[in-house]
Amino acid sequence: MVGGGEGAFIGAVHRMAAALDGDYELVCGAFSSDAGRNERSAAALGLAPARAYSTLDVLLAAEAALPESQRMQVLAIVTPNHLHAPAAIAALDAGFHVMSEKPMALDLAEALAIEAAVIRSGKLYGLAFTYSGYPLIEEARVRVARGDLGPIRLVQVEYSQGWLSLPVDRDGQKQAEWRTDPARAGLGGCLGDIGTHAFQLAEHVSGLAVEQLSADLTTHVPGRRLDDDVAALLRFAGGARGVLRASQIAAGDENGLRLRVHGEKGGLDWSQMEPNTLTLRWLDRPAEIVRAGGPGLDALTTARLRTPAGHPEGYIEAFANLYRSFGRAVRVGAAIPPARGAADWFPNIVDGLRTMTFVETMIANSVGDTKWSSLAETLDQRRASLAK
Amino acid sequence: MVGGGEGAFIGAVHRMAAALDGDYELVCGAFSSDAGRNERSAAALGLAPARAYSTLDVLLAAEAALPESQRMQVLAIVTPNHLHAPAAIAALDAGFHVMSEKPMALDLAEALAIEAAVIRSGKLYGLAFTYSGYPLIEEARVRVARGDLGPIRLVQVEYSQGWLSLPVDRDGQKQAEWRTDPARAGLGGCLGDIGTHAFQLAEHVSGLAVEQLSADLTTHVPGRRLDDDVAALLRFAGGARGVLRASQIAAGDENGLRLRVHGEKGGLDWSQMEPNTLTLRWLDRPAEIVRAGGPGLDALTTARLRTPAGHPEGYIEAFANLYRSFGRAVRVGAAIPPARGAADWFPNIVDGLRTMTFVETMIANSVGDTKWSSLAETLDQRRASLAK
Amino acid sequence: MVGGGEGAFIGAVHRMAAALDGDYELVCGAFSSDAGRNERSAAALGLAPARAYSTLDVLLAAEAALPESQRMQVLAIVTPNHLHAPAAIAALDAGFHVMSEKPMALDLAEALAIEAAVIRSGKLYGLAFTYSGYPLIEEARVRVARGDLGPIRLVQVEYSQGWLSLPVDRDGQKQAEWRTDPARAGLGGCLGDIGTHAFQLAEHVSGLAVEQLSADLTTHVPGRRLDDDVAALLRFAGGARGVLRASQIAAGDENGLRLRVHGEKGGLDWSQMEPNTLTLRWLDRPAEIVRAGGPGLDALTTARLRTPAGHPEGYIEAFANLYRSFGRAVRVGAAIPPARGAADWFPNIVDGLRTMTFVETMIANSVGDTKWSSLAETLDQRRASLAK
Amino acid sequence: MVGGGEGAFIGAVHRMAAALDGDYELVCGAFSSDAGRNERSAAALGLAPARAYSTLDVLLAAEAALPESQRMQVLAIVTPNHLHAPAAIAALDAGFHVMSEKPMALDLAEALAIEAAVIRSGKLYGLAFTYSGYPLIEEARVRVARGDLGPIRLVQVEYSQGWLSLPVDRDGQKQAEWRTDPARAGLGGCLGDIGTHAFQLAEHVSGLAVEQLSADLTTHVPGRRLDDDVAALLRFAGGARGVLRASQIAAGDENGLRLRVHGEKGGLDWSQMEPNTLTLRWLDRPAEIVRAGGPGLDALTTARLRTPAGHPEGYIEAFANLYRSFGRAVRVGAAIPPARGAADWFPNIVDGLRTMTFVETMIANSVGDTKWSSLAETLDQRRASLAK
Repeated sequence: MVGGGEGAFIGAVHRMAAALDGDYELVCGAFSSDAGRNERSAAALGLAPARAYSTLDVLLAAEAALPESQRMQVLAIVTPNHLHAPAAIAALDAGFHVMSEKPMALDLAEALAIEAAVIRSGKLYGLAFTYSGYPLIEEARVRVARGDLGPIRLVQVEYSQGWLSLPVDRDGQKQAEWRTDPARAGLGGCLGDIGTHAFQLAEHVSGLAVEQLSADLTTHVPGRRLDDDVAALLRFAGGARGVLRASQIAAGDENGLRLRVHGEKGGLDWSQMEPNTLTLRWLDRPAEIVRAGGPGLDALTTARLRTPAGHPEGYIEAFANLYRSFGRAVRVGAAIPPARGAADWFPNIVDGLRTMTFVETMIANSVGDTKWSSLAETLDQRRASLAK
Repeated sequence: MVGGGEGAFIGAVHRMAAALDGDYELVCGAFSSDAGRNERSAAALGLAPARAYSTLDVLLAAEAALPESQRMQVLAIVTPNHLHAPAAIAALDAGFHVMSEKPMALDLAEALAIEAAVIRSGKLYGLAFTYSGYPLIEEARVRVARGDLGPIRLVQVEYSQGWLSLPVDRDGQKQAEWRTDPARAGLGGCLGDIGTHAFQLAEHVSGLAVEQLSADLTTHVPGRRLDDDVAALLRFAGGARGVLRASQIAAGDENGLRLRVHGEKGGLDWSQMEPNTLTLRWLDRPAEIVRAGGPGLDALTTARLRTPAGHPEGYIEAFANLYRSFGRAVRVGAAIPPARGAADWFPNIVDGLRTMTFVETMIANSVGDTKWSSLAETLDQRRASLAK
Repeated sequence: MVGGGEGAFIGAVHRMAAALDGDYELVCGAFSSDAGRNERSAAALGLAPARAYSTLDVLLAAEAALPESQRMQVLAIVTPNHLHAPAAIAALDAGFHVMSEKPMALDLAEALAIEAAVIRSGKLYGLAFTYSGYPLIEEARVRVARGDLGPIRLVQVEYSQGWLSLPVDRDGQKQAEWRTDPARAGLGGCLGDIGTHAFQLAEHVSGLAVEQLSADLTTHVPGRRLDDDVAALLRFAGGARGVLRASQIAAGDENGLRLRVHGEKGGLDWSQMEPNTLTLRWLDRPAEIVRAGGPGLDALTTARLRTPAGHPEGYIEAFANLYRSFGRAVRVGAAIPPARGAADWFPNIVDGLRTMTFVETMIANSVGDTKWSSLAETLDQRRASLAK
Repeated sequence: MVGGGEGAFIGAVHRMAAALDGDYELVCGAFSSDAGRNERSAAALGLAPARAYSTLDVLLAAEAALPESQRMQVLAIVTPNHLHAPAAIAALDAGFHVMSEKPMALDLAEALAIEAAVIRSGKLYGLAFTYSGYPLIEEARVRVARGDLGPIRLVQVEYSQGWLSLPVDRDGQKQAEWRTDPARAGLGGCLGDIGTHAFQLAEHVSGLAVEQLSADLTTHVPGRRLDDDVAALLRFAGGARGVLRASQIAAGDENGLRLRVHGEKGGLDWSQMEPNTLTLRWLDRPAEIVRAGGPGLDALTTARLRTPAGHPEGYIEAFANLYRSFGRAVRVGAAIPPARGAADWFPNIVDGLRTMTFVETMIANSVGDTKWSSLAETLDQRRASLAK
């Protein structure tokens, strides 16, 4: 693990998610650039001091030198965003699989560099789009894919938080501080931090690609250097329409990620804060409450559940589903990640490139007068300029 | 009453709303252009046959000729949209007050003509933006106005129905048929029918005017002649941002009007289908569930309630609030409608012009390449061209 | 109307409920024993002063003397409980139909006297068990009756209010004062006021009679002379079990009437505060949300609705359903009320006797050491002692 | 670990709960009396074959013989109920701490024997009353204890499941089979399996002891040998009243554990299926939604949370809280378990004896004619007969 020392939020969650099913053992780490913090973190986690490395480079070199039976197999990257890409590339090139926090990178150019490293290394690369690990998100995806709702017409996704409503980033709140610093967070603020989750979930469940978007990015808190509120109109391949909203200044909102998809025959509705319920509404019959563990679930959903109906599972279990799937791919020596819809799919380079393309398209559209911008054009341009 | 014969939906609702508090008596009507239907409707309503008139013109002439103590005072207009403007203008010019169904008119030019008639007649004109009659909408408006939420940053409104998901308009469903016919419905389909409600509610509660918008209007059902799905990004005076969504093809949705407003300190959330609850979420303390009839309400809200806490009031009661306020203005001989925020405010010409300006701006923006269109410019242009 | 003068709660609700559908006209009243209050009430309601009578006796005599076309047809009784029985008997014997507030009477002996008056007069007698007028309560009743849930095993009903948590009855709160005075409220406090509603709804929807009960009545507020909290274990004919809870000291609760019925195949769940939703849960398939106006309703339910799906109806509309049904029975000259399950059923003498039997059985059981008491025995004893 | 082999439900949950925080390592087990199943279970869990023991006796002897640094410290008991007591006593007497599934034992006599073993061994004994591990249950307990609600008057608890609605116990469903067999489940069916959870939670949160109860136990499914539905009226020390309901034949219900406590000033409401929300309703101000991770929580609650607001935690995390607290007591060498209200409290022998006393009192009351039975008398009688 790189990052995730004392006081960090997401590192601890990665550790719990990996531990839950007994599939992973934490064997080494470079938890902090501060030596004392690094050592204390390792000690608290019960690691041998020798395997608490001062930097990622040292870690990679030392672990690569160990016999295969003792060596780290997967590097979990839980640093601030600006280190995601260099860490991923270094680890892949050193022969390790990588499970990375999102967003993939600071920008699309970095993301394409990771893609290149994945290709040349032949190693697995997973991205913690955690929300796609929820069992009922899988059920939602299956329902759309098998046509239960009819042809899809509407995709609405929102991700509403309020914790950046005040200028806490200027007041020393560590989580807020780096997230609003372009050098460490990347091109997008709210856009990169949670807008990418919303976008990934919308495409993942609907099975449809956003072709064009029209965006409005706003910074509501004076002095903040990145957007803290995002809205976009979406046009999907095949004619579906959508709206994406993400905000970190919706005061009073917690972690309100909600996805709705409507087809000709009905609609589905899922909210992350009550993740064990999927509501299906129908044109011609009463709405149904599909429940985690209850009747009517697809086998792909059931495989992602650990407890019977009415015993709620949450965020850590969703996260653990990604780690479990990733671990299975590692164990079977998969050369490429399982396809979307496979039992052990996990978010990967495909989701990463889509979300980074989304970020750059949003930003470009927001500052201009053009109404609609194309994601494919954004990606083509970046690939072309890198090819030069 | 003009319109609202046998089988019509909204006419019956107007009658119940007007009857609820005992403030109105139905004295005459031109319920249908079909003579038999007109007579049967009048009989069913217990009207004297002599006051079931064949047309509105006949009605206006006959009633105007009656002694003042017997004469109709207020004309309720519950026809399809294309008759709203001619009926309103005729009634106003004949010296009657008018309570009209929305949308105000087929287009902004007609709306301006009604405005002129209101001015020259000195009569009262009310518009059935029913949802603004809910008690907790008044509470929401008060909370925003007195600054409870802090400066407003986000306004999100959605109105989601599914009943036009299939081409029922081609299959003889009467309500669907006229609503999708440009000649009878006006410029907007879903936009005019329910988008106007959403827009009116957003401006009414937030107390903020939309300055610019960027729209995407779609017709999902093949062969339909008007939009059946609407989305827009909104920019409000003062810097608040918003999104408006309205759909009549969100299969499975009923009458899902929801309004959320966020300020720097907290947010409010109201859904029409559970109208007796207003949720307030705060940055620094637990969310509160404000309830119709419960503790903590403003006197303006309490005045709109008829039952104690826990005895639900609904759509008809909200509607009755508009009729009651309108009736009071008539009774006291008000020359102009009470201002927004007054105890007996009702939606009027101001709301009508704003919503018709919204409709025309949405349509113009949707067909063009310009990202942002200004509502003020739309109105100025229409006024200017009428002035020629 | 007798009772329901200025400041009274339930009288105004009766008037709105009767007015809603245009089936009733308020023609006379004895609104208050205070002459000034009586006159002001009549004036506010637009009644001719001549028909604001000083007492019920005067009213009955005067109205009986009027020509049939002008005469009152139905007396609405909205007084405190101790006047229910004498008013009902006097009106029936004077040849008028009666719509009475609940509870039917102060005790079972009075209730049996009303029954006798109904029989000898041949007039109709309705009781305002308002909650059984909700459309989805009819749907619930139909679902049970036609066996959707399988054989019924569990019936749980609760009615939870908190407004008597403090000794407001000693502090001059008028509604609280008479409700806690045995001379005016009757044998039961909370038991008579809302326990009877819960009991009536449970038997009405389940279609099952409570045979035995075991009760615990409590007075939590020191000095209060009647119970303010009630619980009972219920045993129904056929083996179903149940629990009834009613409280007026559940601080913070509003008007929380909830009914759940479970059979072998599934269960239903209805809450009065969100009355337009009926949740059906199934052993073998996802739960369904049955909605007022939505798909899947029985015709008996639809006939009790006034608006399309998503336009909420509430307490006044439920009440109006009872008045409408009662009015139809009056109009067709029915000699006996429609049976439970008939299109125009309304709560009547049957519901009244059951609930008064319930009240007396509860009280008797609560003060004794016997575990189970029989409702049939209570009724038999009262009939027998009256027969002496 | 004893029990919890392939196909068992609760054993896997114990393992995940223990693993989550990295505090425990599974070192040995006697997972099944079937040798093959035992070996396969151990292999799947990555245990050395040498530490998969054929029986608990073998396990205890072998582990006791290991050097302290390698030896098992805590035995987790996850067998069917009839083995709980013998396993616990054997382990305690062999010098190991015990974390046991509930119910504590088959009957109160066995429970008292465990109590004796705890006393003579000086080892720690924890009981998996999992629901008391939820963070917001701690918040609820704190709120009551510090008087936020005022003096407590009402305690309502219900635990509603439907999975035994059909005679699945006769059809080979393993979980159902032993739970309805008196020899393996104990005196109570539904009563012991989930009624004990409800009772423990009610006393734990209210801080009040049930003094008397009146019960109705029913077996609805023909041929079943234990109760499948339970109801009781409760009288608490100090005058509070309550109702307890537990059912396993409430068809369609999942795992519906709900607790409500009302005091003079307000009430709290918590449902296990949405465990991250605690609703507080007040007599004099709007209801509050207290949220896991949100503002307003007590430090004891926060200490039981792993993620920020809006990232749901569930059943496994609640369970892990018990394991974590138990582990801390083991680590610090506590001689007795932390008191209720201490930071690291876990359910222990106290909760065990209360619940077994409850079970025996319920059964005795249910079969007799006495209305009220005393829990203290039940316990005194058992202690006395054991003392002979």
